[in-house]
Amino acid sequence: MRTVIVFNHPYEGSFCNAILNAVTKGLQKNGHEVDVINLDKDQFDPRMTSADLKAFVAHSAVDPQVISYQARIKTADHLIFIFPIWWDIMPATTKGFIDRVLSPGLAYDHHPRGFGLVPLLHHLKSVTVITTMNKPGIVYSLLMGNLIKKVMIKSVFKTMGYRNVAWISYTSVKRVKHEKRLKWLVQLENKFSKFH
Amino acid sequence: MRTVIVFNHPYEGSFCNAILNAVTKGLQKNGHEVDVINLDKDQFDPRMTSADLKAFVAHSAVDPQVISYQARIKTADHLIFIFPIWWDIMPATTKGFIDRVLSPGLAYDHHPRGFGLVPLLHHLKSVTVITTMNKPGIVYSLLMGNLIKKVMIKSVFKTMGYRNVAWISYTSVKRVKHEKRLKWLVQLENKFSKFH
Repeated sequence: MRTVIVFNHPYEGSFCNAILNAVTKGLQKNGHEVDVINLDKDQFDPRMTSADLKAFVAHSAVDPQVISYQARIKTADHLIFIFPIWWDIMPATTKGFIDRVLSPGLAYDHHPRGFGLVPLLHHLKSVTVITTMNKPGIVYSLLMGNLIKKVMIKSVFKTMGYRNVAWISYTSVKRVKHEKRLKWLVQLENKFSKFH
Repeated sequence: MRTVIVFNHPYEGSFCNAILNAVTKGLQKNGHEVDVINLDKDQFDPRMTSADLKAFVAHSAVDPQVISYQARIKTADHLIFIFPIWWDIMPATTKGFIDRVLSPGLAYDHHPRGFGLVPLLHHLKSVTVITTMNKPGIVYSLLMGNLIKKVMIKSVFKTMGYRNVAWISYTSVKRVKHEKRLKWLVQLENKFSKFH
């Protein structure tokens, strides 16, 4: 099994980093090959350029970094995103990854009868989105309708035709006790050590 | 009246550019000073850095471009965003503008009693978000619940405490006739020539 983790947090001491370590450990225990795309360390550029727009239409990327990311994703059995929730959705960098890397020709194609999309990543068995926020979960759910589920799971992966897409959410991250956060990490490592 | 337009589209021949011209013409007829922040031409970097996170906590930006944008926004009577809808929400570049430029200390502050936010841009009379998409409006509304309204108007500006926030949406942009698009532009110029 080959799992690609798309990671996005600019601060190395973040809880997202602790999540990345726990998930990686769990997957490795389970015998997965773990390939981490660290968008911040790689200085991935999330800005669509005029050349990217042409590449989008031609179904063929031009940026060497985008091409290399696409090759790594093409062979993935599982895809995991880890990022913080900022203003109720993903950071710009993760949005740019969706815009630029998960492009037509790689992640999906237009339906031959002209309506809707069909998925192209035939290896892909699951997509998991893991997020952190300081907002309480009840506020995010009741007032914001769990926006990231709509924005990333429904609008992106379900629209592309992927079915096995899950969201793992850590809320009130700053407010909870240190022990609670440690417990979350142990549970996460455990979960991914049994991940198929 | 001073109106700041935050523009984001990488292709100079886009309908967003035509919208920018129509809105600018209308506002100038109306005697507004129009200040265009062209995120693509300026090569604005939407990536939050580790330094930005510290600046966020300290309520004081460090990037010279962010500082200059903030100074221009501080004196704005009206704020207008123009961008295309990609994957049902804004492009990465506009998301990064929200993350990095509309920061605490400029756009809002935490409520003194500790709950919610209070707006700090006291000059600001309105915010208008103008978007383009190729999807039909009925699909975006029924299937996607007009996501950009939730993501940008509710989650960002209403959360900050701004009240006069409007959304102007152009849908099926590629599919409609050239005449229809021209009509939209005339209407837009007209609207902004009477904008207070």
